[in-house]
Amino acid sequence: MKVPPVKGTRDFYPQQMAVRNWIVDGWKAVSLRNGFEEYDGPIFEYLKMFQIKSGDEIAEQLFSLTDRGGRELAIRPEITPTLARMVNQQINSLPRPIKWFSVPRLCRAERPQKGRLREFFQWNIDIIGVDDVLADAEVIFTTVDYLRSIGLKPEDIQVRISSRKLLATFLSDIGIAEKQLDSLYALLDKYKKIPSDTFEKILLEQVSDSATVKKILDFMAVDSLEQMDEIVNVGNDVRDPVIDLKVLFSYLDVMEIREYCVFDPSIVRGLAYYTGVVFEIYDRASELRAIGGGGRYDDLLKQFGGPQITGTGMGMGDCVLEILLEEKGLLDKQLPKRQLDYFVAFAEKSGGGTIFNIVAKLRSKGYKADFSYKYKAGNLAKQLKEASNRNAKNCIIIGEEFMGKNNELVIKDMDSGEQELVEVAKFFAQL
Amino acid sequence: MKVPPVKGTRDFYPQQMAVRNWIVDGWKAVSLRNGFEEYDGPIFEYLKMFQIKSGDEIAEQLFSLTDRGGRELAIRPEITPTLARMVNQQINSLPRPIKWFSVPRLCRAERPQKGRLREFFQWNIDIIGVDDVLADAEVIFTTVDYLRSIGLKPEDIQVRISSRKLLATFLSDIGIAEKQLDSLYALLDKYKKIPSDTFEKILLEQVSDSATVKKILDFMAVDSLEQMDEIVNVGNDVRDPVIDLKVLFSYLDVMEIREYCVFDPSIVRGLAYYTGVVFEIYDRASELRAIGGGGRYDDLLKQFGGPQITGTGMGMGDCVLEILLEEKGLLDKQLPKRQLDYFVAFAEKSGGGTIFNIVAKLRSKGYKADFSYKYKAGNLAKQLKEASNRNAKNCIIIGEEFMGKNNELVIKDMDSGEQELVEVAKFFAQL
Repeated sequence: MKVPPVKGTRDFYPQQMAVRNWIVDGWKAVSLRNGFEEYDGPIFEYLKMFQIKSGDEIAEQLFSLTDRGGRELAIRPEITPTLARMVNQQINSLPRPIKWFSVPRLCRAERPQKGRLREFFQWNIDIIGVDDVLADAEVIFTTVDYLRSIGLKPEDIQVRISSRKLLATFLSDIGIAEKQLDSLYALLDKYKKIPSDTFEKILLEQVSDSATVKKILDFMAVDSLEQMDEIVNVGNDVRDPVIDLKVLFSYLDVMEIREYCVFDPSIVRGLAYYTGVVFEIYDRASELRAIGGGGRYDDLLKQFGGPQITGTGMGMGDCVLEILLEEKGLLDKQLPKRQLDYFVAFAEKSGGGTIFNIVAKLRSKGYKADFSYKYKAGNLAKQLKEASNRNAKNCIIIGEEFMGKNNELVIKDMDSGEQELVEVAKFFAQL
Repeated sequence: MKVPPVKGTRDFYPQQMAVRNWIVDGWKAVSLRNGFEEYDGPIFEYLKMFQIKSGDEIAEQLFSLTDRGGRELAIRPEITPTLARMVNQQINSLPRPIKWFSVPRLCRAERPQKGRLREFFQWNIDIIGVDDVLADAEVIFTTVDYLRSIGLKPEDIQVRISSRKLLATFLSDIGIAEKQLDSLYALLDKYKKIPSDTFEKILLEQVSDSATVKKILDFMAVDSLEQMDEIVNVGNDVRDPVIDLKVLFSYLDVMEIREYCVFDPSIVRGLAYYTGVVFEIYDRASELRAIGGGGRYDDLLKQFGGPQITGTGMGMGDCVLEILLEEKGLLDKQLPKRQLDYFVAFAEKSGGGTIFNIVAKLRSKGYKADFSYKYKAGNLAKQLKEASNRNAKNCIIIGEEFMGKNNELVIKDMDSGEQELVEVAKFFAQL
């Protein structure tokens, strides 16, 4: 019986697995060097956990299930609710700030399309407990630190930054009611993602007033923070989001990633829970979906039954990133080659048992070592070809020098082609 | 709203994540040095894929779900069906032997108990396309290579080895019908897992004849291959499973892991698909469930719609292993410590921007570097304490020597306590 894979999922054959591992290992290494610690949660949680956050497409895209005990569960579509649950559970014992990262496998029941699959991996970094745009700057720095480390330059990608608080202040200034905000955020998030006439039509339906539509469009098109000063009026009692953004950009400057970053008030983020700085990373040509994005959330822990503690974070999936790296020619040349330290070949017609003794010893000493299951044919040329195909650095040849009284192995350097005879005990002593 | 985690799942806080990573990284490293390549499949497959193999407890323990398109899916309870599907899909292009490994996340709707959870990680290695007990030996070697590398000795663990073909031949000899075999395997697999009187009672119900019960019990108690020669009669037309086992043990001897291995005809494996060598790894005290197990399967690919190609493999979960390592005191001392290359501290009251420039530079050069968000208080003692708590090798102190005209950083070696003054440009040039 032949069963196909499920649409929108991926099989990771060794070649694809090498790509995934290279991306994930890069995420992990950069997280660690930026001082983040790794966490993870279960692949499924109670369904209701993913329904807490309102204004969210994600809740419609759940793979939900009922277990035999009648519990309603869902495969995680994102890890942020799990993060909130885990932090809340140990809120009194966790030292702050909490700087955590994770690389969860996530599932969303979306229509599969370019850069969007039903199952994917997502890098998440979060700093919880620091109410300072310095933490937002550190999250953005860590994101760029990774993207730069894999060869992406300011001419390839751009971090577009704005502030949900700036937008909220502006919308309030022009008379938008608070209860309209969540649905408006979801729409404004589509500003550059849907055709402009469609966008304007839907916006007019929502705000019912063409003067307001114009004000919003003007706001979204502003391209400098200085100009924003004149548009948004902040009372004396709130922290000025424009000043926050200016301080943020000064940090990004000191961190030497300013050239990757741009102020862009059209960045909104669809999710309801953002309250401060928000950002998205795009390819400069804007041909692909967002590579990643994030922002500050003041109320997230509280929504999940915990205290009001602020946090800021970023998420980046593997699908769009991989497409971009492929397009830029940055993938193949950076992938680590599969290789062996030693390939052990057998040049005789009988008595091949020693081969396993030598292979086993090499492996136990930590060397990557292998042999051919066809060694019994004693065809040395074929075995050397396999050694070469598998990028073996050295080939150990067990031939008459060994099988006779001398106990000598031929060690062949596969790059230079040079060979030397080494007595077996001496060889292992030298390793 | 506070939602609890689902029973039988685990939250991996950084401390638990470090344990999981150490185990998984060990599995991966040992697989690679033994010449296996990594693969993975999706977390869910069509439900029917997990129902193909009969005689299987696993099918009853599925987390199944129906997606919005009405497809019946299930979270994978094991990866072997996925392996069979993936190999079959590319059977004509994959070079053989196929030596693959994977570390899938698996879910089973079991009653959670010691060493058994609803979600776990399992190391899988398989060699497909080699009809030679040498491949079984290599699978067992790789398993022991890992267990030995983490400090487990022959006095801690034992690989108990038998042959499904040996058992089948014996059962056929004593008159058991072929259609009875699958249910009998499932029962015999419980020989050492349930009380002996219960076992004998159920066995009598299945074979309806106390003479046959005695023969089976005698067979299960044999402790040498030599003795088995007298018990099992193999016709000339089939490969003798006793000889296969003798050859296997001679390979294990050459591979220098013989002392970890023992012949034990009571090893059956519950799964229906095994056809040759079978084995399970136990703690010597037999106080825990099996740490892992595996064996040869001749018909697996065929059952999944592919050709008849033989394979042999092993699976090992993380739960029992972790309990054993904890009990043997092998866990804490082997876990890599969380550490930093540099902690950057600030000893002044103002002008802290430089701290981020230095931290960012260090990170981008690949060093693990961090700072305290409380740097603004300028409390050096507290910052040095944090550096020490985080196992920083060095602490860079930005003080008056830097903020004045000298541009000099204090570099403090946290082990020796020694300090030196280095001009900042020179410091980065030396890195």
